[in-house]
Amino acid sequence: MQIAEFVEQSLGRWRSQRSGHNLAFQHFEEVRSTIDISARSNDDAEVLKLCQLHDVEPDSIASPFHMEWEGESDWDEDESPRGNCLLVPIPNSHDPSRGLLLRSQGYAETIPSVGRYVFTEEGMFVLATEYDRAAAEERIWFATENLRFRVSTIKTSNGTGILTASFASEVRSLSG
Amino acid sequence: MQIAEFVEQSLGRWRSQRSGHNLAFQHFEEVRSTIDISARSNDDAEVLKLCQLHDVEPDSIASPFHMEWEGESDWDEDESPRGNCLLVPIPNSHDPSRGLLLRSQGYAETIPSVGRYVFTEEGMFVLATEYDRAAAEERIWFATENLRFRVSTIKTSNGTGILTASFASEVRSLSG
Repeated sequence: MQIAEFVEQSLGRWRSQRSGHNLAFQHFEEVRSTIDISARSNDDAEVLKLCQLHDVEPDSIASPFHMEWEGESDWDEDESPRGNCLLVPIPNSHDPSRGLLLRSQGYAETIPSVGRYVFTEEGMFVLATEYDRAAAEERIWFATENLRFRVSTIKTSNGTGILTASFASEVRSLSG
Repeated sequence: MQIAEFVEQSLGRWRSQRSGHNLAFQHFEEVRSTIDISARSNDDAEVLKLCQLHDVEPDSIASPFHMEWEGESDWDEDESPRGNCLLVPIPNSHDPSRGLLLRSQGYAETIPSVGRYVFTEEGMFVLATEYDRAAAEERIWFATENLRFRVSTIKTSNGTGILTASFASEVRSLSG
């Protein structure tokens, strides 16, 4: 599996059902959301800006894409989690099954981040991102063409271990 | 990774936090439970009985183990899910990273089952079990020595797709 195929499979609208586990307190969180993933061209202005920020040659990138999500919160309309970010993969020139991923906003922290991804032999996408005070791992795999799963874990880098884990089931929204 | 090492790592008491997703209805389920995993000897009477049931030579098995779980239900003491099952791995004699797993009670159905397991290059345990009317996949991996994750999916075999997915975070209970 390579990043172009993975991004291609991911494009579209997804209905996401996500469960968060706070491991220390055994607390659960439940979020339903809609995720829109769309392709961006290599010479898109925002893509070029993100490349510049990270000193990356624009011709080394592949399949940039944009994610936008809007959550449903049962208890407070104003609290509904929403956001978006731009993602720019840079495949390794020697081994196309791995590379870097630039992100305009990180998962664990809302600042630009750079992660390292690798596809396992099964085609599971595994992304590791180091932040100042935390490290995040994200695993994404397709069960069918229209169903993908995502497991994210965040651990503090001071050695106290993993803080939260979350699991999302994402079903393609065929109605658009 | 081979089954003996995986079972060895799994022994002990685990505090489990499990989220179930009903994908069609976007319904969530939350269960906290305690899981005890203990080793059984190859010549244990119940192990031999399970081998006999499946016409398996007792000298082809490795690392049989027993699982017992007791859930906590917030709303009804009588409803707390509990159960136990005996598991008997039969490693493939040519490729020890894969094999069969006999189970005294299946995950999707409470009848004896036989699944096929394989360890990925990362050491993730992937078990596929076919039932009469359903197919189950279970993925288990260790994030640290004392934390393991488990993703289970059940799909009906009549082609209507995956019905439920669940995610468990299992933290080793060091207090015993």
